Amino acid sequence: MTQKHDLEPFVNPQSVALIGVSSRTGPGTFNVLEQMLSRGYRGRVYPVNPRGGTILGVPAYRSVADIDAPVDLAVISTPRTAVPGLVRQCAEKGIKSVVIITQGFSDADDEAGARMHREIVETVRSTGIRVVGPNTLGVINTFNNFSTSFLKFDVTNSPVGVICQSGIFLAAAQDFTGGIGIGIDIGNTSDIGFTECMEYLAGDDRIKVINLHMEGLQDGRRFLQAARRVTPQKPVLVLKTGSSEEGARAAGSHSGSLAGEDAVFSAAFAQCGIIRVEDSARLAELNRTFATYRHMAGKRIGVMTISGGAGIMAVDACSKYGLKTAGLAPKTREVLESVFPDWMHAGNPADIWPAGMAKGYGKIAALALETILADDGVDAVLGITPAYVHPDEDPLNIVGPVNEIAARYPHKPTALWVFGPHKERYAERFRETGAVVVYSSPDDAMYCLARLYRYHNEIKGKTYPAFRPPQDIDRGKAGIVLAAGRRAGLPALNEQALDIMEAYGIPVVRRGLAENREEALRLAEKLGYPVVMKIASPDITHKSDASGVQLNINSPEALALAYGEMMDNVRRRKPEARIEGVLLQNQASGGTEVILGGRRDPQFGPVLVYGLGGIFTELMRDVAFRVAPVTPVEALDMIKQTKSYKILSGARGRAPGDIDGLVDCLVRLGTLLQDHPEIGEVDINPLLVGPDGCLALDARIIPV
Amino acid sequence: MTQKHDLEPFVNPQSVALIGVSSRTGPGTFNVLEQMLSRGYRGRVYPVNPRGGTILGVPAYRSVADIDAPVDLAVISTPRTAVPGLVRQCAEKGIKSVVIITQGFSDADDEAGARMHREIVETVRSTGIRVVGPNTLGVINTFNNFSTSFLKFDVTNSPVGVICQSGIFLAAAQDFTGGIGIGIDIGNTSDIGFTECMEYLAGDDRIKVINLHMEGLQDGRRFLQAARRVTPQKPVLVLKTGSSEEGARAAGSHSGSLAGEDAVFSAAFAQCGIIRVEDSARLAELNRTFATYRHMAGKRIGVMTISGGAGIMAVDACSKYGLKTAGLAPKTREVLESVFPDWMHAGNPADIWPAGMAKGYGKIAALALETILADDGVDAVLGITPAYVHPDEDPLNIVGPVNEIAARYPHKPTALWVFGPHKERYAERFRETGAVVVYSSPDDAMYCLARLYRYHNEIKGKTYPAFRPPQDIDRGKAGIVLAAGRRAGLPALNEQALDIMEAYGIPVVRRGLAENREEALRLAEKLGYPVVMKIASPDITHKSDASGVQLNINSPEALALAYGEMMDNVRRRKPEARIEGVLLQNQASGGTEVILGGRRDPQFGPVLVYGLGGIFTELMRDVAFRVAPVTPVEALDMIKQTKSYKILSGARGRAPGDIDGLVDCLVRLGTLLQDHPEIGEVDINPLLVGPDGCLALDARIIPV
Repeated sequence: MTQKHDLEPFVNPQSVALIGVSSRTGPGTFNVLEQMLSRGYRGRVYPVNPRGGTILGVPAYRSVADIDAPVDLAVISTPRTAVPGLVRQCAEKGIKSVVIITQGFSDADDEAGARMHREIVETVRSTGIRVVGPNTLGVINTFNNFSTSFLKFDVTNSPVGVICQSGIFLAAAQDFTGGIGIGIDIGNTSDIGFTECMEYLAGDDRIKVINLHMEGLQDGRRFLQAARRVTPQKPVLVLKTGSSEEGARAAGSHSGSLAGEDAVFSAAFAQCGIIRVEDSARLAELNRTFATYRHMAGKRIGVMTISGGAGIMAVDACSKYGLKTAGLAPKTREVLESVFPDWMHAGNPADIWPAGMAKGYGKIAALALETILADDGVDAVLGITPAYVHPDEDPLNIVGPVNEIAARYPHKPTALWVFGPHKERYAERFRETGAVVVYSSPDDAMYCLARLYRYHNEIKGKTYPAFRPPQDIDRGKAGIVLAAGRRAGLPALNEQALDIMEAYGIPVVRRGLAENREEALRLAEKLGYPVVMKIASPDITHKSDASGVQLNINSPEALALAYGEMMDNVRRRKPEARIEGVLLQNQASGGTEVILGGRRDPQFGPVLVYGLGGIFTELMRDVAFRVAPVTPVEALDMIKQTKSYKILSGARGRAPGDIDGLVDCLVRLGTLLQDHPEIGEVDINPLLVGPDGCLALDARIIPV
Repeated sequence: MTQKHDLEPFVNPQSVALIGVSSRTGPGTFNVLEQMLSRGYRGRVYPVNPRGGTILGVPAYRSVADIDAPVDLAVISTPRTAVPGLVRQCAEKGIKSVVIITQGFSDADDEAGARMHREIVETVRSTGIRVVGPNTLGVINTFNNFSTSFLKFDVTNSPVGVICQSGIFLAAAQDFTGGIGIGIDIGNTSDIGFTECMEYLAGDDRIKVINLHMEGLQDGRRFLQAARRVTPQKPVLVLKTGSSEEGARAAGSHSGSLAGEDAVFSAAFAQCGIIRVEDSARLAELNRTFATYRHMAGKRIGVMTISGGAGIMAVDACSKYGLKTAGLAPKTREVLESVFPDWMHAGNPADIWPAGMAKGYGKIAALALETILADDGVDAVLGITPAYVHPDEDPLNIVGPVNEIAARYPHKPTALWVFGPHKERYAERFRETGAVVVYSSPDDAMYCLARLYRYHNEIKGKTYPAFRPPQDIDRGKAGIVLAAGRRAGLPALNEQALDIMEAYGIPVVRRGLAENREEALRLAEKLGYPVVMKIASPDITHKSDASGVQLNINSPEALALAYGEMMDNVRRRKPEARIEGVLLQNQASGGTEVILGGRRDPQFGPVLVYGLGGIFTELMRDVAFRVAPVTPVEALDMIKQTKSYKILSGARGRAPGDIDGLVDCLVRLGTLLQDHPEIGEVDINPLLVGPDGCLALDARIIPV
């Protein structure tokens, strides 16, 4: 860190002003100064209290202005009404960094809180002062024992950086993350948020893993871009809460953030290499996994087990998380069988139970573990071992040999599941030596290894290509159509939407407007039968209800007849409507109907939605999201993510659909959304995906 | 237990013969006698060792025959080749109960093991001797400190009965089940299995919860019937391993059991009230849940929390497991708001953080907890509390008040999630007092409470009505058709299958056989156009390939033409085939196509399968299983379990299908499977479910 980052004074201040610190100390007073001193903070501390005097022997100042020395960081914990004024005072004093502990701003249920929050934001904007909070415990740094928290907590140092929106993630860091290096509670963000903190932690070499506890997010696109720079360097794990509808509501009133749609968060995380953790209970073991293992090249897991039953659990877990049980080489099996009874073949899982019983467990376990690790067909090993079966005097004797073996294979994780009375001692000893993670179940082990594999093979070192919009877009035409709709004040564009799609290079059904019967007949000849006819009128939104739609018109005779009937019917039902004629389109068929949609997400801006038409989208919710625009690779990922992909790709004897064409349509629709912030929602429904191409049959655009 | 159960001598023997016990003792010798004595077993023990002498001061007998006193239980741990003879010797000696520790029987990879296993089974059959094992640790009883295990293990006494197929469940019981009362490792069952052990544990009042660790199952139907008697009395939880394909293979070679299809196990467990646990890590907390809480009447959860962020996690977990966050009564909110700051409304989660900060945490937490518990709209409460924030001297002060409150609401679970440094002490203290479970995460708490709710509302006290087959079945006709097929040695029944369905009262499409064109025309008139025509020939299996199927025949003219064409084509393509005429059926339409199937499961016998036709079954795997026969209630459950149920029930403007008719078809198909063990597989594909009834269009029966 050669250049000083704005977050540096928060994490590593040389001098701190504690504004609003109480003169009461001892249990139950939550005195920040007391906590700071007891942790052994070595910088200068200036308590600020209107009554002055000394607190815990430290002279207190009556106001910030009275402090006659430079201050790196101010920590405010006064009643809320005083806060906006104090932030201004700090700015005037030249203090560049403030933590606001106080709560009751955008998290409060009253307007006064929201107003004061806006005041703080305004001071940030006008003065350039940097703020963490309000409603935060602030910062914890276990490398230098500095923290702004008024709570006492014990947490071990670990190479984990934590950014959270709830103090519980710092207060209970030992439970959640299994230790902490640097933690920042961004609280109800008024200035510094996830993006800046993540970038700061990315630059600190002591931090090997970054954890995010996220309730909501501001400026999702900036965050996503930053994450694409950070995740290729070090793993970023997120626990996104407020994922349920009720939880999202609760998050809104807690950190004042709008949670948005959970599926969009998942999509955005996937697009920038952030690994989502579903359950807080997994976080600590994942952190240990990433902090311990340097690499994992493939999915093939070898299992060495003292218990056949436990081996089966490991295999189930392997399959559950998309890993594979390795096939062992003949030579590996040969070595294993040399210590097995005659009647037993060596397989994977390698059940060493009978051997362990007969000849002494420790040596055989070490031999088996190393034999499996050495197999070229094995990418990681899970060893399942009790803490007490083997006859060595000290049940911990095995720790040394296993660590040595693990160290000889730095690119293949050696994982353990230890059970029985001494398991905590085992786990601790291995934690100290640091080459092996002891998991709490085979399920946990495989869950973690699957994510380790994913990180090293799909995320680490990845470069994200810049999005290149297609070159053949007729932006002028699209702009004209959109502008016309805007001028006309239309609540939605329907027919015109297809023109816009066409301008963006999306193949669109042949169609046209005919002002009378004769034009209609000529047009239909050009389009080719069968055709679909719809009434063209700016005054009729629901054409079907007004008898304004006719499908399956197969011949000129049928068209002539249908034209007359439609005009009669529409005039009878909507006598006041202006009729511009009829819209005709070729009735395309053959292929699979899919839906392409777009909309604006409060966090991430334009978002694409894709799904198979009809019941798949509506009943099965088999849809995929991506933050737009998307590259062809992302578009293909999106399509493949749906279960219905099998249908498009030619299942059940169907001709496979034109997936390349579909990818192109998604790329183009994403470009449209990016180019035109005035588009609120867009749908192509359906897009027909045939074997030789795609065709948009209907579309709709709703302005913001 | 007035009548002495066959398992009684295994669990509570007065005298034990230890056959094959070694004279070597000390660490690493795994000496059963040594372990038994060290645990403090107080009955008589007779070591049997060919060399005689004394072992650990106890005189050894050279053979079983030499023991001159009655023996309740023999424990065999000799090399495998001696075992079959020793079991016979025990029977001759009049010993009624044997545990076979030795492994290498059906679990071995050689034929010798399988043969010796059969010898043991034969001795059981011919002498009536009862056997647990082989390949087992045997029995553990922590009420009387008796165990046959040669492993040393520490496990606390708890009201949990365990039946397992791997010794690890006894050896690591503290990890898996959080304590144990009575445990039986049935190993590679040669006699005593799950059913008998479950019934035995059901009869022991000290056991409050039964845990099954199941790799495979023999005699699934007897087990299912027994479970229907046991689960209404006490909860039965199962950890079914070998659930993945690879896991099932591993299970086969471990306990010699055939795992069968995992979905069938899930269906069978649901049908008999057994609660399936997906992850071993959940088992101990579930056991504590069931052992602690007496009742839970509804799904409405109140959350009291010291952390807004943690409250959101609790709400997410609530939603994940199908529980609801309770709406609090105005009076409840009033009380809570009296201790909240002005700017904060009391909601659910009730975030007591600011209140706790201002006025002392302990009392406020207790008040809030009791206020929420007392609310009539709340069925259970989760309290989220740190182990260290509040200012009381002893952070455990809160244990007493919370226990008292919990005890005042015995029918509403009071659950806690405690975080921070002292959490283990909290958990232990609450474990001692026994009214409150301290969970390791909000996710765990809601997972457990959801299952507690399910047990008390859907399983406890349930009576399973006997299956009543429909009365209007023409068994005679069905039997004649099946017998004719059998005599003809047909590999599958096709057209005849519809006759059998008809005999079982399933509505079947109108159809018939015509031997020539004139008959065909008369028959079609009777059936009604459009019709489908198929060639009738015992020699043509794939009719379509031989141009032997014609759809959409709309008129007598079209039929006459099609008849001629079909005869010409078939004679040309299959000149050798015997032609009996054509099969005609009315071409029914309108409705949703579903598939009804049946087959024989290796564990559970006849099993029904149901799913929507086409892609839903083949690609989305949206199918439901049930062990057959099914009652109408079970059939309806089965239909509702599929996602596609929404389509049948009238989504997207469709007319709702005749669900009652579909239920009846499933009941009848189940009856057919039960009546005819000679049917191996059956399919009705499709069954058309229309608004006014169902109609089987095609069916197939494959003999066993």
